[in-house]
Amino acid sequence: MPSWVESANDPAGDFPLENLPYGRFRGGRRDPWRVGVAIGERILELRLDEGMNAFMARGPAAWRRMRRELIQGLRIRSERKTAWARRLVAQREVEMGLPCEIGDYTDFYAGIHHATRIGKLLRPDNPLLPNYKWLPIGYHGRASSVVVSGTPIRRPSGQVKPADQEAPRFGPSTRLDYEVELGFVVGRGNALGSAVPVNKAGSHVFGVVLLNDWSARDIQAWEYQPLGPFLAKSFATTISPWIVTMEALAPFRCPAFERAADDPRPLPYLLDEGDQRSGGLAITLEMHLKTRKMQQPVRLSRSSSAQAYWTVAQMLAHHTSNGCNLQPGDLLGSGTLSGAAPEAGGSLMELTQGGKAPLELASGEKRTFVEDGDTVILRGRCEREGATPIGFGEASGEVRS
Amino acid sequence: MPSWVESANDPAGDFPLENLPYGRFRGGRRDPWRVGVAIGERILELRLDEGMNAFMARGPAAWRRMRRELIQGLRIRSERKTAWARRLVAQREVEMGLPCEIGDYTDFYAGIHHATRIGKLLRPDNPLLPNYKWLPIGYHGRASSVVVSGTPIRRPSGQVKPADQEAPRFGPSTRLDYEVELGFVVGRGNALGSAVPVNKAGSHVFGVVLLNDWSARDIQAWEYQPLGPFLAKSFATTISPWIVTMEALAPFRCPAFERAADDPRPLPYLLDEGDQRSGGLAITLEMHLKTRKMQQPVRLSRSSSAQAYWTVAQMLAHHTSNGCNLQPGDLLGSGTLSGAAPEAGGSLMELTQGGKAPLELASGEKRTFVEDGDTVILRGRCEREGATPIGFGEASGEVRS
Repeated sequence: MPSWVESANDPAGDFPLENLPYGRFRGGRRDPWRVGVAIGERILELRLDEGMNAFMARGPAAWRRMRRELIQGLRIRSERKTAWARRLVAQREVEMGLPCEIGDYTDFYAGIHHATRIGKLLRPDNPLLPNYKWLPIGYHGRASSVVVSGTPIRRPSGQVKPADQEAPRFGPSTRLDYEVELGFVVGRGNALGSAVPVNKAGSHVFGVVLLNDWSARDIQAWEYQPLGPFLAKSFATTISPWIVTMEALAPFRCPAFERAADDPRPLPYLLDEGDQRSGGLAITLEMHLKTRKMQQPVRLSRSSSAQAYWTVAQMLAHHTSNGCNLQPGDLLGSGTLSGAAPEAGGSLMELTQGGKAPLELASGEKRTFVEDGDTVILRGRCEREGATPIGFGEASGEVRS
Repeated sequence: MPSWVESANDPAGDFPLENLPYGRFRGGRRDPWRVGVAIGERILELRLDEGMNAFMARGPAAWRRMRRELIQGLRIRSERKTAWARRLVAQREVEMGLPCEIGDYTDFYAGIHHATRIGKLLRPDNPLLPNYKWLPIGYHGRASSVVVSGTPIRRPSGQVKPADQEAPRFGPSTRLDYEVELGFVVGRGNALGSAVPVNKAGSHVFGVVLLNDWSARDIQAWEYQPLGPFLAKSFATTISPWIVTMEALAPFRCPAFERAADDPRPLPYLLDEGDQRSGGLAITLEMHLKTRKMQQPVRLSRSSSAQAYWTVAQMLAHHTSNGCNLQPGDLLGSGTLSGAAPEAGGSLMELTQGGKAPLELASGEKRTFVEDGDTVILRGRCEREGATPIGFGEASGEVRS
């Protein structure tokens, strides 16, 4: 549907009237964060009485009301055009912040092609552990170091133990990697001690961001047993500034990942017919790299979030199945969303076979892992016959020493 | 030193003038949380202009000034007695809350006797993994489900897979356990990308609480590979309401854990002479159990925090060594602080050898794990020749179905 904001009508743009993702922006360092929705190359300031988290806590009926109102005011020939035009600011003139306050961050592992390919590097004959197809594997991540797109990434130092050495050493990571993920933003929370059933879980999800789960593979290999990744992941996690709502994503829902005949059927607390039918999300994800020598980024991979073994409803139902309380603004990472083909790997670990097969870039440069000065850019877009395409903007970060 | 608050002079009490721990309390459900310090059986309200987290963020000089002022006002024959007496409330008349807002919660694994004993259940010949003595193993925990002492604990449900079954099932945990830990509360934070050196790390720690890291062993066994504990721990973590400050604990510092001759020397980023000399903490920890049939709790174990393999300065320096930012109010769990003797195990997993050797209680009851209606009570106290003893109060919780 066309908008009176001209740039929203560019079919190659990310933010048509059908999208309207939420973000927080400010004019300068001393200004408070303001909530707005992206429309074309502009932002409509919302002037919520409450903050972003409180708005998300209000639940789906309030979200729908707001969306209806925004579409009415922004569509072509709206009577509100004159009044609302004054509330527009140009995206390029403001600084974007994290789209909400993130209380807890959980990272899942639902990308089955990633889990299989990484597992093969460790256990060639038995890549997936026995629990993988029974429950959405996940772990607690670090919330304080989640940063917005554009934030420079400092290369982490840490303890690493080369296989041919007796003792570990401390120093800058030499195997710095990215991971292509989605981040699901919790809207309504649940009380401690109460589980959210899988058929209600979708109504607790406000929307989706792009997420790059930066990973220091050498630190991870030495530290992660027996309690999982820690400093290998906690130095930074980059997300895109715009939360694309589940309503905007409705035309791009798809069936849940198709199980093979010998895959286990999900246990009842993870199984909902509606979710099986349309709990998946068909978002195309592309990772791009721009080295200092390049004029333009090159694409490293392309994959689809439809390849996630678990739906977001299953992840959220599982997360709360022990009574754990989720809160508005909590972030749930999907896990690395690689495609089935080797060139669709969502991490350099996969694309270079653990660093053994360097990528040859069009610039003549080679990469096994991310080098200082490299900018890593994650993009996401939804396209489907008969629907207006929408995009996510980007989650990018330049690595510095 | 005696106080004009009579109950503070009871040598068996936890809160003499030398302690002055910080907490948050309120008169009723509709009142805001207020910050105060415990003195005997009372609380002195502080009337901070800022909240507890902002006060902690101010750093050691501000903490010292406040302590000096409080001691001057509360000691016997203080001129402020009349004015301050009006600011006192009885602890038994108020509700205690979490002592601060907790941003991120990290749980370490520094109890070497616990790690060894749990490791032996899995790997009899090789209980400690190769990284254990090189770095403080830790993982991200769930902050939203950290609750204050007295909060009832709902028995979690989850996926468990009995060894003799083909498929997992979903249901209430039957191996619900506790873990005896300390929680270190971060005062001043650090910026993302900047590491805190080990010799400065102590100045970032505001104080210490008791921490019970409730654990569902059956859920944990099935879910934890390859990314670590998740739902087995995230249903609840109980802490005591009073933060005992590092200044109050100064008389109870002790040398860091004594390494064996063949133990590795910590890498330079974890090694500080002063920290080796006095970075340990001699806090006696006792776990008590009260079943519904008991009039009085029985003691299950007694151990000391001096048995932690890593000091809090080493944990904090390691945590930030990759540039991870800590924030005021972040909570760092120590890991289970078991003693060397089998009866000093800080979890039922240890005390019952993984459930194989039930405890016989004085009441005639038996326990392998925690049952519904059981109240689990963690207490901590510091006693040393020539110093006034101080205590932590308690971290307790009753388990309900």
